[in-house]
Amino acid sequence: MENTIGGLGEFALIRRVTGRFPATGDVILGPGDDAAVVAAPDGRTVATTDLLVEGRHFRRDWSTARDVGHRAVAQNYADVVAMGARPTGLLIGFAAPADLPLEWAEEFTLGVRDECAVAGGAVVGGDTVGSTVLTVAITALGDLQGRAPVRRDGARPGDVVAYCGHLGLSAAGLALLTAGTDGPAACLDEYRRPSPPYAAGPEAARLGATAMLDVSDGLAQDLGHVCRASGVGIDLDPGLLRPAPELVEAVRILGGGPARASAFMVSGGEDHALAATFPEGTDLPDHWHRIGRVLPAAEGERHVTVAGRVPERTGWDHFPGE
Amino acid sequence: MENTIGGLGEFALIRRVTGRFPATGDVILGPGDDAAVVAAPDGRTVATTDLLVEGRHFRRDWSTARDVGHRAVAQNYADVVAMGARPTGLLIGFAAPADLPLEWAEEFTLGVRDECAVAGGAVVGGDTVGSTVLTVAITALGDLQGRAPVRRDGARPGDVVAYCGHLGLSAAGLALLTAGTDGPAACLDEYRRPSPPYAAGPEAARLGATAMLDVSDGLAQDLGHVCRASGVGIDLDPGLLRPAPELVEAVRILGGGPARASAFMVSGGEDHALAATFPEGTDLPDHWHRIGRVLPAAEGERHVTVAGRVPERTGWDHFPGE
Repeated sequence: MENTIGGLGEFALIRRVTGRFPATGDVILGPGDDAAVVAAPDGRTVATTDLLVEGRHFRRDWSTARDVGHRAVAQNYADVVAMGARPTGLLIGFAAPADLPLEWAEEFTLGVRDECAVAGGAVVGGDTVGSTVLTVAITALGDLQGRAPVRRDGARPGDVVAYCGHLGLSAAGLALLTAGTDGPAACLDEYRRPSPPYAAGPEAARLGATAMLDVSDGLAQDLGHVCRASGVGIDLDPGLLRPAPELVEAVRILGGGPARASAFMVSGGEDHALAATFPEGTDLPDHWHRIGRVLPAAEGERHVTVAGRVPERTGWDHFPGE
Repeated sequence: MENTIGGLGEFALIRRVTGRFPATGDVILGPGDDAAVVAAPDGRTVATTDLLVEGRHFRRDWSTARDVGHRAVAQNYADVVAMGARPTGLLIGFAAPADLPLEWAEEFTLGVRDECAVAGGAVVGGDTVGSTVLTVAITALGDLQGRAPVRRDGARPGDVVAYCGHLGLSAAGLALLTAGTDGPAACLDEYRRPSPPYAAGPEAARLGATAMLDVSDGLAQDLGHVCRASGVGIDLDPGLLRPAPELVEAVRILGGGPARASAFMVSGGEDHALAATFPEGTDLPDHWHRIGRVLPAAEGERHVTVAGRVPERTGWDHFPGE
């Protein structure tokens, strides 16, 4: 029991991991009291929460504890920046079996710390409890810096659809792991530690994005939320969906051609790219890739098409194929 | 499967329960986008998180789904008011087996809604995932209304120690259930649905409380945090620890006398009373019960005593006895 979290005990574990988290200028009161106090300079706080359950959202044999720490932070702060906000604070609920190796908890903590350093927010609080299933609950807070939140319901016909970040790499990485095959590190790494383009969220808000979201369930499925919320259709141009070289290589290993690479880009989730709509004529930086157009749409047609056709697979739980 | 959450599916479940939650003036953007936006009028947000795991924090045969909903909200908003803040918003992570009856999820939702109505905050977001262990992760946000947060480290020798709310009823209720014995409804109810004195938190801050916390692990253990953080000792006066009539009755059923009732008050957790220290001479309202005094203390003596003696049992995981 000595090298497990059960052997160490809850309070000692909390003291041990809390010391790992540096404060930032947003932390008015950090861990250790009944609650934390986080700066909310413009009088509003952006807040989002996500659960990660072992066996469903991660596997200890496919991802290291550090990977899981990185991912837990990334997927939550991706939701914060998708509103156009800047990450400020994070709270971590950690439910774990008593026999969880202490090293796992400590490595997880370092992954959280390092991803927070990239995203810019601080860990301000948490809770540690026992459970038979390793479960991580993250809540992320953010600061809109005086801007309006970029919602899902503001897309207008004529708007340009663009994304920033990676599309399809994470799903290809998962497919490679599922197949028990080695493949491009970029795909495996993106599955284990997605790299959301944090700065692009506030940037899109400043550029006048009319709608934005983080691609977690797959590009077509997630843009479908924009379609329904905004009362529009979105048509993607397959010629603009250019797969990364690593995705092309992964598809070659998995077996398949350009259509399968496109399917990974359209249907694969968990890269945590940002997808947004912008007024036509917006001067987009090169890292925002134009991929389609917002169209007027009647009720019942408010969905995503690729060259006018509904893609066969749209969700993260469907395996993208030929 | 039809009447289970697995049969309904994640998105349908979210739509169904989200409709139950009314908005308040603090909700700038409610559930349904990547993140919520909550008012933080004074430029700061209080934030706290807690996990409830079935079999550890609740049992479905001892507590109804509504009870668990009430309790999940109560224990988190208790932490918010213990900082002297007003509850504003809540995020709910819900991990559940696919065979969880839909009715359980819906009743839980109603418990959450009703406790939010009492506490004054709104549900602004959440996440629903599958897990083999029913787990609820709550994050609560609050507004300090321009006041300084009441921390644990401000108690000064000479201060009065007082509490507001119930002490020992919840632990007595748990003891009755463990013994398989019926008993006073007030005890069983307090175990199932603790009733934190929400308004007393901001009130204590206005009255000039020097330190405050929510009693979740037991009065002596929790006040011990104040002692260590403030560098003081606290001595409780057993003559002022007057058990409620329902606690006296529960102790009579469980077997025991006045000493056991006192032990429940000093060591029993989860009533979510508020305990605070105030400058001597503070004009306390009657619902704040004076129970002791803050003392100067050397290193190693910064703990809680009862009439000068260290109580034998101080934690929630110790069963309070004679």
